[in-house]
Amino acid sequence: MEENRLKKLLEEVAGGRVTAAEALDRLRTLPFEDMHYAKVDHHRALRRGIPEVIFCQGKTDDQIVGISSRMIDQGVDLLATRCDPVIFARIEKSIPGAVFHSEASLFAVIQNKTVRKGRVAVVSAGTSDLNVAEEAAWTAHYFGCEVDRFNDVGVAGIHRLFSCWEEIRKADVIIVVAGMEGALASVVGGIAESPVISVPTSIGYGASFGGVAALLAMLNSCAGGVTVVNIDNGFGAAYAASVICKKIYR
Amino acid sequence: MEENRLKKLLEEVAGGRVTAAEALDRLRTLPFEDMHYAKVDHHRALRRGIPEVIFCQGKTDDQIVGISSRMIDQGVDLLATRCDPVIFARIEKSIPGAVFHSEASLFAVIQNKTVRKGRVAVVSAGTSDLNVAEEAAWTAHYFGCEVDRFNDVGVAGIHRLFSCWEEIRKADVIIVVAGMEGALASVVGGIAESPVISVPTSIGYGASFGGVAALLAMLNSCAGGVTVVNIDNGFGAAYAASVICKKIYR
Amino acid sequence: MEENRLKKLLEEVAGGRVTAAEALDRLRTLPFEDMHYAKVDHHRALRRGIPEVIFCQGKTDDQIVGISSRMIDQGVDLLATRCDPVIFARIEKSIPGAVFHSEASLFAVIQNKTVRKGRVAVVSAGTSDLNVAEEAAWTAHYFGCEVDRFNDVGVAGIHRLFSCWEEIRKADVIIVVAGMEGALASVVGGIAESPVISVPTSIGYGASFGGVAALLAMLNSCAGGVTVVNIDNGFGAAYAASVICKKIYR
Amino acid sequence: MEENRLKKLLEEVAGGRVTAAEALDRLRTLPFEDMHYAKVDHHRALRRGIPEVIFCQGKTDDQIVGISSRMIDQGVDLLATRCDPVIFARIEKSIPGAVFHSEASLFAVIQNKTVRKGRVAVVSAGTSDLNVAEEAAWTAHYFGCEVDRFNDVGVAGIHRLFSCWEEIRKADVIIVVAGMEGALASVVGGIAESPVISVPTSIGYGASFGGVAALLAMLNSCAGGVTVVNIDNGFGAAYAASVICKKIYR
Amino acid sequence: MEENRLKKLLEEVAGGRVTAAEALDRLRTLPFEDMHYAKVDHHRALRRGIPEVIFCQGKTDDQIVGISSRMIDQGVDLLATRCDPVIFARIEKSIPGAVFHSEASLFAVIQNKTVRKGRVAVVSAGTSDLNVAEEAAWTAHYFGCEVDRFNDVGVAGIHRLFSCWEEIRKADVIIVVAGMEGALASVVGGIAESPVISVPTSIGYGASFGGVAALLAMLNSCAGGVTVVNIDNGFGAAYAASVICKKIYR
Amino acid sequence: MEENRLKKLLEEVAGGRVTAAEALDRLRTLPFEDMHYAKVDHHRALRRGIPEVIFCQGKTDDQIVGISSRMIDQGVDLLATRCDPVIFARIEKSIPGAVFHSEASLFAVIQNKTVRKGRVAVVSAGTSDLNVAEEAAWTAHYFGCEVDRFNDVGVAGIHRLFSCWEEIRKADVIIVVAGMEGALASVVGGIAESPVISVPTSIGYGASFGGVAALLAMLNSCAGGVTVVNIDNGFGAAYAASVICKKIYR
Amino acid sequence: MEENRLKKLLEEVAGGRVTAAEALDRLRTLPFEDMHYAKVDHHRALRRGIPEVIFCQGKTDDQIVGISSRMIDQGVDLLATRCDPVIFARIEKSIPGAVFHSEASLFAVIQNKTVRKGRVAVVSAGTSDLNVAEEAAWTAHYFGCEVDRFNDVGVAGIHRLFSCWEEIRKADVIIVVAGMEGALASVVGGIAESPVISVPTSIGYGASFGGVAALLAMLNSCAGGVTVVNIDNGFGAAYAASVICKKIYR
Amino acid sequence: MEENRLKKLLEEVAGGRVTAAEALDRLRTLPFEDMHYAKVDHHRALRRGIPEVIFCQGKTDDQIVGISSRMIDQGVDLLATRCDPVIFARIEKSIPGAVFHSEASLFAVIQNKTVRKGRVAVVSAGTSDLNVAEEAAWTAHYFGCEVDRFNDVGVAGIHRLFSCWEEIRKADVIIVVAGMEGALASVVGGIAESPVISVPTSIGYGASFGGVAALLAMLNSCAGGVTVVNIDNGFGAAYAASVICKKIYR
Repeated sequence: MEENRLKKLLEEVAGGRVTAAEALDRLRTLPFEDMHYAKVDHHRALRRGIPEVIFCQGKTDDQIVGISSRMIDQGVDLLATRCDPVIFARIEKSIPGAVFHSEASLFAVIQNKTVRKGRVAVVSAGTSDLNVAEEAAWTAHYFGCEVDRFNDVGVAGIHRLFSCWEEIRKADVIIVVAGMEGALASVVGGIAESPVISVPTSIGYGASFGGVAALLAMLNSCAGGVTVVNIDNGFGAAYAASVICKKIYR
Repeated sequence: MEENRLKKLLEEVAGGRVTAAEALDRLRTLPFEDMHYAKVDHHRALRRGIPEVIFCQGKTDDQIVGISSRMIDQGVDLLATRCDPVIFARIEKSIPGAVFHSEASLFAVIQNKTVRKGRVAVVSAGTSDLNVAEEAAWTAHYFGCEVDRFNDVGVAGIHRLFSCWEEIRKADVIIVVAGMEGALASVVGGIAESPVISVPTSIGYGASFGGVAALLAMLNSCAGGVTVVNIDNGFGAAYAASVICKKIYR
Repeated sequence: MEENRLKKLLEEVAGGRVTAAEALDRLRTLPFEDMHYAKVDHHRALRRGIPEVIFCQGKTDDQIVGISSRMIDQGVDLLATRCDPVIFARIEKSIPGAVFHSEASLFAVIQNKTVRKGRVAVVSAGTSDLNVAEEAAWTAHYFGCEVDRFNDVGVAGIHRLFSCWEEIRKADVIIVVAGMEGALASVVGGIAESPVISVPTSIGYGASFGGVAALLAMLNSCAGGVTVVNIDNGFGAAYAASVICKKIYR
Repeated sequence: MEENRLKKLLEEVAGGRVTAAEALDRLRTLPFEDMHYAKVDHHRALRRGIPEVIFCQGKTDDQIVGISSRMIDQGVDLLATRCDPVIFARIEKSIPGAVFHSEASLFAVIQNKTVRKGRVAVVSAGTSDLNVAEEAAWTAHYFGCEVDRFNDVGVAGIHRLFSCWEEIRKADVIIVVAGMEGALASVVGGIAESPVISVPTSIGYGASFGGVAALLAMLNSCAGGVTVVNIDNGFGAAYAASVICKKIYR
Repeated sequence: MEENRLKKLLEEVAGGRVTAAEALDRLRTLPFEDMHYAKVDHHRALRRGIPEVIFCQGKTDDQIVGISSRMIDQGVDLLATRCDPVIFARIEKSIPGAVFHSEASLFAVIQNKTVRKGRVAVVSAGTSDLNVAEEAAWTAHYFGCEVDRFNDVGVAGIHRLFSCWEEIRKADVIIVVAGMEGALASVVGGIAESPVISVPTSIGYGASFGGVAALLAMLNSCAGGVTVVNIDNGFGAAYAASVICKKIYR
Repeated sequence: MEENRLKKLLEEVAGGRVTAAEALDRLRTLPFEDMHYAKVDHHRALRRGIPEVIFCQGKTDDQIVGISSRMIDQGVDLLATRCDPVIFARIEKSIPGAVFHSEASLFAVIQNKTVRKGRVAVVSAGTSDLNVAEEAAWTAHYFGCEVDRFNDVGVAGIHRLFSCWEEIRKADVIIVVAGMEGALASVVGGIAESPVISVPTSIGYGASFGGVAALLAMLNSCAGGVTVVNIDNGFGAAYAASVICKKIYR
Repeated sequence: MEENRLKKLLEEVAGGRVTAAEALDRLRTLPFEDMHYAKVDHHRALRRGIPEVIFCQGKTDDQIVGISSRMIDQGVDLLATRCDPVIFARIEKSIPGAVFHSEASLFAVIQNKTVRKGRVAVVSAGTSDLNVAEEAAWTAHYFGCEVDRFNDVGVAGIHRLFSCWEEIRKADVIIVVAGMEGALASVVGGIAESPVISVPTSIGYGASFGGVAALLAMLNSCAGGVTVVNIDNGFGAAYAASVICKKIYR
Repeated sequence: MEENRLKKLLEEVAGGRVTAAEALDRLRTLPFEDMHYAKVDHHRALRRGIPEVIFCQGKTDDQIVGISSRMIDQGVDLLATRCDPVIFARIEKSIPGAVFHSEASLFAVIQNKTVRKGRVAVVSAGTSDLNVAEEAAWTAHYFGCEVDRFNDVGVAGIHRLFSCWEEIRKADVIIVVAGMEGALASVVGGIAESPVISVPTSIGYGASFGGVAALLAMLNSCAGGVTVVNIDNGFGAAYAASVICKKIYR
């Protein structure tokens, strides 16, 4: 509830144009509507200047279509993550205008013009980390950033990282995506001057414990100023990166 | 090794002022010196515009004094974290100019003038989280940011958070410090427009497992764009916050 | 074995109407019968005034049908949880009168009249938590409570919770269902005056560890008086809520 | 912020006795005061009819005395938990009227008359669980309940539990306190008709993992309707029990 | 290598009937033969008077058939565990004389006469624990014990256990099989005079962590003298029980 | 409550010598007395023919002395475990007749004559496992078994185990005590014909996690019929061993 | 980047045959090429004298074929691990010359002549560990070692290990592959004079936790000098073994 | 028992100089002696050409002195690890000739001449890892290797590692010692041609979990052929390194 609206409301009460009882009621009328299974808050997108987001995992086809349609009708942009190709194939006809990125398991419906501000580098360690890296890259794209991708530059062959470092360091924010032992975050964090957000991936086997090894490595990084998001959470890293970019180019 | 220096070196080789063998040697002469137990890299501070940092935990008194003295002699600023009052009392005479902040268990030696840029809000949940919050606050201070503190605004009495929200939201970066269930990060993340960096603390008992409960909560935050640092790592959060501030006010 | 029956038996022994040997035998005749794979205790339902419950997971179709039939023949009410639609489709013909709630994966056979007493609010954080919330809601319903549902009111958009708070607070018991970081339990616990029972759900990914993150958060809640049940245990929360309601309206 | 006060404020605005700007300001004046390290909310106690609570662990002597004094000055009752005898000995002179219960590591300052409503049974498994049981018992006492204690009735000698069962079952709420394998909660939960709140304790060794074994046992209890609080959290169990009692005798 | 054979060999060397070199060679000829993928030791069965055992899980159909055939050819008895019905259906024609127990997922080929000695009670908590209980029961049977089964006597309805206790206590060894919180082991351990071996099962959900909750409960049992085997290891419990029985009736 | 006493009581009721009401009362008079902090059950010792046991850890000096004195007054034997030398020094004057075994951290007061039956071998891997091995050895001794000790025979020098194997195998029950990787249990279990009870110890460092590595190794032993007790639980292993011995020599 | 090449380049700069700017550019031209999803470093194989390796798990068919083809075109040898038979069946036509080892789930394309140096013994505990043992054996083979296999020699029948010990000890490096409790590593480590590399396997059930039990056992081995690789990482063990062999026969 | 001795014994039996019974006895006379609390095997050192080792942690002063004296009397060399300065101060007078290295918490008694063969590089990440690095370095020294130390070359300033790489790569075996996220092992493993043994240290805080983060990182290293020892196990790494060196320079 914006302060301005509250102020205006109070002034209307003071001016006698609105009664106290009406004001009390209006204070309860919040800008979202109830669809039983999900409250859609159309103002959030406006407030933050980013698309509405649906996390598809754990939702039924009908729920995804229902929430999407409501958003599209309201004219807001839409980003739907964790939607695998099989599910998208089933629902794509019900969501006109949806663009699907299979390697990132997400689709978007863009109805408004985006002005891109800020440059995000998505740096990933191995070929197997690509899906998470792509989720990060496309999310940053739809959240209004320029995105550069640097794949397969893990520390087992550290010269590969150094060979593209001049390009990477130009980014406003660097997202590091790595599974296994996640050492790439520390190496990048040690030489970067931009904010570094690291994403552990569930890639690995045995004692990688589905990404826990990489997660712990990143949390314990000896390189200063590296922050971390959840395992495989390319979306979250890109979200945070876009918030930083908006601050820089505000 | 800066590209410019390399370029210049190659030009000197090209110009015959330096032989190939000398060049090869110089490429190995990196700007740090060996004290046997710690390599001090005086250029890092210059490169990043932040103080040199010593992590005191696990180091002997002699090691702390030795590294500190070397840095002070070089004229760089110095921030020494995880130095409890007992240790500081033993070494303070050997480190002239050191300012100690007992609630944050850190000391600093500032020899250069700082121009503060960027505003960091340090928001903490309970009285017991104060030490970590203070580590974050003083680190952000010594890394060149303006700092505002908002203590004891945990979600068990959520009106306390809302009552100071107008002040908190003015910050360029918000650091959330919380132990126990760490829910404050999600609530702040849900309403903030600035980047949010969350620090789980080891405050709690029983199944808090020394901060693991708060750490997991923050990693799994339903609020978009919240990033996380290690348990009790107020320093790391402030480091990351200052890097973002430097980007914003570059 | 009720004290009254024991007392009566002892009086019959004292009165010579029952021999000591007979009494010893009768003391062993307990009110359940043996079906080889499950002892059905028909008196428990009467004792507590709630339906008999079958936990279907891990049981074969035949076992579910067998236990159900025996209970139905005895005239008691029956609630069968963790019965997914596929299993129910196979067995529904063998259990006449069964009403299935697919979103809650449970069915019930009600043969006795229920007088509803007490009001339970089931408050859930996200659309993905709906299944567990519905298990709680229908269980509370079949255990004799009035139930109100409040879905998708997680803390990422905390105004949504506040907008229906006036309704939620009317409940005698509040059940909070949340996955991911489970912060909703702390926020509700901080403002509620009724007992709050929290149910962590396995919703989430990465470091949510199948609900462990939410479970730990709820156990460590900074809000006083919040109790917790097992991950995804909507049934258990509703059971506890109904026991409290029966105490209130005894 | 109570609705009545808001309503009244809005009416004053409508009546011209308060300007819109003043109203906006007052809406920010919330009923707690800032002591820098802890926001004391004197209205919470009034709202819930229970003492203000200080969790002493992790606070300095000065902080405990400071918060206590403020509360005492305001005339509210005070319960301070996790205050071991050594700390209390240092601060008792600064907190006149404090009554210390060493076995429970808590002290209280009672300034108002309590009318006791509701009966809580605190049932503990072994002699070593006594401290947690006493924390629960004294908390329930200071929160306004009648309390009965049943110690050393663990399942290794199950006849001891049965011998006092007639007394236990009279309680409105039963708190079960057990370490090691925590089986007592399941046995009590299987025969009780009152709400059962279980408290795992950190008593045990080896693979008890500081109470985790008991915690998991209680969360997985096969007895319906048992809820759980954090390890060693006697306070939390009693808090929840008193909330239920207040509902029953409202 | 039996001492007698060694002694005899040495005597033959002493008597000049065997040279030192031959003796050295023979000492290397151990009584098992190499099938490339599994060394079959036909003497073990004779030594211990129990069937040879194949653990089928992780072996291919061909491996199971191959090892079984070799054993059958040698005239020893055979017990093959962890062989689910689907696998047995594929291989049963290749293993004449095999008797399959589907509820226990094991089959046996008995070629020698067994004299049963010792009585083992297999006591299980819930219907869902039946498979593990049956593995224990049939293993004990094929290892030469009399077996009594007591199912569905978990502590949630503790009178069910007590009603068959007179029968249970007659056993030489009691095997307790329980999932969820595993409390049955402590209750039985508290009243039994015979050795108690407990088997945690993977039955449960949420924080049962596939049997870890029950395992920890059993390891931490407050009842003296309870020993534990691996999760779901009905076979191991029965093996240990039969070893004890052989000692008793040696 | 023995059946005979119950039978006799019922006969007295039948014979009119006891009224029904009196009988009901007597049924509640169980053979233990309440000392507030611990219910002492003097009949247990008689029932099982073993000493009463006090687990001292977590009890105050006064509690240990109090419980001990009561037991001694009743003429039963007493074994007090987990009593370190410092505590024993403080209380030994209050417990006349107590014999302390410092390496096992236990003391005993023996007032009755013991006839030893059964032979227990306590086999330990390293010098550091001695304390736990001694707890097992002395417990088995005071529970009426003959005990042989075999120390420092871990698998790193496996010939040391084999050199004393002829002696070990004579035991009725073998207790294996090992920390670190706990491999000794598997090696002994693979060659033993007697029941093997294994005790993981907390000896080790790093990833031994206080005995978890050894515990898991023992639970997963590839040797059939090995059972396990809790980490460092020498007492429990000896208890179980003595129960088996009593069965063998009943 | 080899020092020689750098030296030569610098000399060319010194000789005026290469300008400084050109040198700077060339320093960036590293010997790998970008295929978008994987950087192939053809020099690594030459540098180390081992095949290029593809870890197939997590890669699409197209990615495996694409990377393989590029390597084959370059004339280097190729080893592709974690390629199950189903995947290989789909891609084998696209990779001419590939030899598949189904039991090891790997294929190789050998285009250069190998001179075998060094002898590696692969010792495995049970039939179920064969797949991992074969991955180790074939990897060592393709990395240029002679390989001997010793299967099913686990400690449950320790004479089986001793019977082939004379052969095992001839190896330059011994790889021990074991699941369950992993005790084989300690026994072998205790008697071996060659380096021992142990591989825990995920074979086991219940509390083996997918190989964690064996991993911890091996890390905590009481036998000196045993090193460990990740769970099921037969490849890694063989890689390390071949590196040692190359050192020995350099 | 060496084969030669066995052969000779058998020949003596064949020659009639030794009876079969005597031979049987002698076969049991193994070359170690029993000191009750530790079996000292003096031949092991001779067999392997390395000092006898005592792991002091968990042993009493008397035990350390006793074992040491026995070894010294036998003329073998001795290395005693995990002996902190406080303990050494208490026992040094009883162990003449002992040389203590406080930073490595170990002492040695060298009575025989060592010929050093093989070069081991001990590379450590941070100043706080020094103790473990020194344990590795001194162990390798006393096991007969040349040792080079490279301290404080962690990946946060990766140029420091590269600046001494030319020296490091000369080693026959590289030991990498690192705490926190342990990334140094992967970076070194990616560029090294010698065997790399990594030692995770318990250095770190929060989610480093006493070295688990570094351990998991090293086990999951994306660099081929890196092996791992237990947390803080500098001794074990050096032991393995010396075994490899002996193989190389055999």
